Amino acid sequence: MKQRIYVKTKELENFTVTILKNHGLNENDSVITASVLLSADRRGIESHGVARLKRYVDGIRNGIIKLSPKVSTVVETPVSLVVDGGGGMGQPIAYNTMKRCIEKAKNNMICFASVRNSNHYGIAGYYTLMALEKNMIGISLTNSAPLVVPTFAKDAVIGTNPISIGIPADKQRPFLLDMATSTVPRGKLEVYSRTEDPIPDSWATDENGIPTDNSLKVLDNLLNRRGGGLLPLGGGTEMTGGHKGYGLGSVVDIFSGILSSGAFGKNVYGKKGEPPEVAHFLGAINLEAFMGKDEIKKNMDTYIEMLKSSNKADGQDKIFVAGEKEYIANEKNSEKLSIQSKVFDILNELGEEFNIKLEGE
Amino acid sequence: MKQRIYVKTKELENFTVTILKNHGLNENDSVITASVLLSADRRGIESHGVARLKRYVDGIRNGIIKLSPKVSTVVETPVSLVVDGGGGMGQPIAYNTMKRCIEKAKNNMICFASVRNSNHYGIAGYYTLMALEKNMIGISLTNSAPLVVPTFAKDAVIGTNPISIGIPADKQRPFLLDMATSTVPRGKLEVYSRTEDPIPDSWATDENGIPTDNSLKVLDNLLNRRGGGLLPLGGGTEMTGGHKGYGLGSVVDIFSGILSSGAFGKNVYGKKGEPPEVAHFLGAINLEAFMGKDEIKKNMDTYIEMLKSSNKADGQDKIFVAGEKEYIANEKNSEKLSIQSKVFDILNELGEEFNIKLEGE
Repeated sequence: MKQRIYVKTKELENFTVTILKNHGLNENDSVITASVLLSADRRGIESHGVARLKRYVDGIRNGIIKLSPKVSTVVETPVSLVVDGGGGMGQPIAYNTMKRCIEKAKNNMICFASVRNSNHYGIAGYYTLMALEKNMIGISLTNSAPLVVPTFAKDAVIGTNPISIGIPADKQRPFLLDMATSTVPRGKLEVYSRTEDPIPDSWATDENGIPTDNSLKVLDNLLNRRGGGLLPLGGGTEMTGGHKGYGLGSVVDIFSGILSSGAFGKNVYGKKGEPPEVAHFLGAINLEAFMGKDEIKKNMDTYIEMLKSSNKADGQDKIFVAGEKEYIANEKNSEKLSIQSKVFDILNELGEEFNIKLEGE
Repeated sequence: MKQRIYVKTKELENFTVTILKNHGLNENDSVITASVLLSADRRGIESHGVARLKRYVDGIRNGIIKLSPKVSTVVETPVSLVVDGGGGMGQPIAYNTMKRCIEKAKNNMICFASVRNSNHYGIAGYYTLMALEKNMIGISLTNSAPLVVPTFAKDAVIGTNPISIGIPADKQRPFLLDMATSTVPRGKLEVYSRTEDPIPDSWATDENGIPTDNSLKVLDNLLNRRGGGLLPLGGGTEMTGGHKGYGLGSVVDIFSGILSSGAFGKNVYGKKGEPPEVAHFLGAINLEAFMGKDEIKKNMDTYIEMLKSSNKADGQDKIFVAGEKEYIANEKNSEKLSIQSKVFDILNELGEEFNIKLEGE
């Protein structure tokens, strides 16, 4: 059996829109959500692409994701917003908020938004890209279900809490950082669990909070909340800098869940008797706040060229800049892309109910 | 011979002010610089304290640090500044800029400043603390001499580029992250080089860009620009997340050196025929831009208590929050503190010229 199946990119996007619409999400929100998911697949971040469509559908079905949320602006100043997403789909909430941020930053130079009561919003980098398209700096952070163990702790208390920051360049591709603040995301453990290869000791801890090479055990412990989990960037000790990844993950939690009085830490799973909720932090910075678009974009070219033209380590032939691999994948996958055959089958199961079928080769 | 000598904290600060004044730095700037240095020593960050006084004095003597810099505001909007430090002492440039940011954020909610043509500004966290004292979020970034090797590169191209972010709490101590974006700072290698203990493989590479356990070799290579250097947070491979630390270090470089059209990357050593220069990025965010001071500070208490009260890993009895260790040290060291006897001797050599002496016990 083939492990991967090629599908037309546009067809996969249309299919995703149709599935979401048929589950009651309105046209606009379905288009936005599909765009975010496809952007992940195109950029090679499969864990956050259409492979998650079933989870979103399940979220709608069990009421965690509300179809007609009451989205409200809780605080507004010329340079900031606090938005309550009303428990709706994360992608349209974040998309609409980032659009407002970009609009405000046009006139007021900077806008940051802290967003509460939302759901999983896909890849953080999507919203950063929105700012980059307008020649602005983009910032996108989100908290997430607690999977990461703080330094010296036994249990997962914070999420993989990604940080995405993008800065436009002129002739070079933009700089686009999009990273979990854990050493690896859970999806990486899932890959290793399939082959039962041992994982490096900076990735995860067992139920006693001790680094382990057994990915199956970690995933099972997380599922059953038995303790242990992913390690912050830098690993399980202060000697290797694990407290730094833990500190960065905390900053994401604070900017997202605390500035908005939303959920943070363990509460992202759901406060007592309430459904889980997610918080985001989005920002746009106008380059005219500093040395201006033309000069900054030229400086970025110089910087990126400086990094890429540096001497390579023995055995290496290329130095990458943040986002470069994803831009290359995005260009390659514009017409068609490959998805895991397991994902292909799940998508077609979702489609059966509505008599739609995804064609693959 | 005693390894460490106790000195009165206030006396050490006065001594530092006197040395700086006697080298021609004006009263105000001397007081600010001494305050930043003492803050580092009090907080247990010795590498950035009075141990560096001689380097600053040398900088003044050889003209790298200008005594009467022409500091100018290159760009000003209601929420941003670009400042040219005129090659002056880094601490007063950063201090005065952060003060302006805080002032602007009082009325306009947010202010960010990108600062070029400055010098080493001490611990990043000092300027974050200034914002915390005003119940604001503080941000402080700086680039620095190229000591860090990008993922897959052979040579050091970027600095240890620290990130400091602070958020006030109510009854709990503030959250105060202050971290180099390398796994460890150079000072850590110096400690290991004294005993010749092997260093972990996520710390540094040799002249071929290959991880090494030999700290002496790395320090010698850096000094003679032979290649190799410190590794970004996450170490030397993508598997352990090294590209993330490299990405974060780049963000610091961009916000500091590129938004201000200052020096970045290798140019922090000095562009062709010009002296080295350093760039910073400083920011203050008013909590009223989001859910407001009272609510956010209470949320912070809840979050910090959640982290600290989590179950401990086997063999651990305390979970720390960013900045906590430094706050504890700062309280302990308010009356007297200990410095290395080697540093004590160097300080007294500096004092001899002006007939002042530091008393120790």
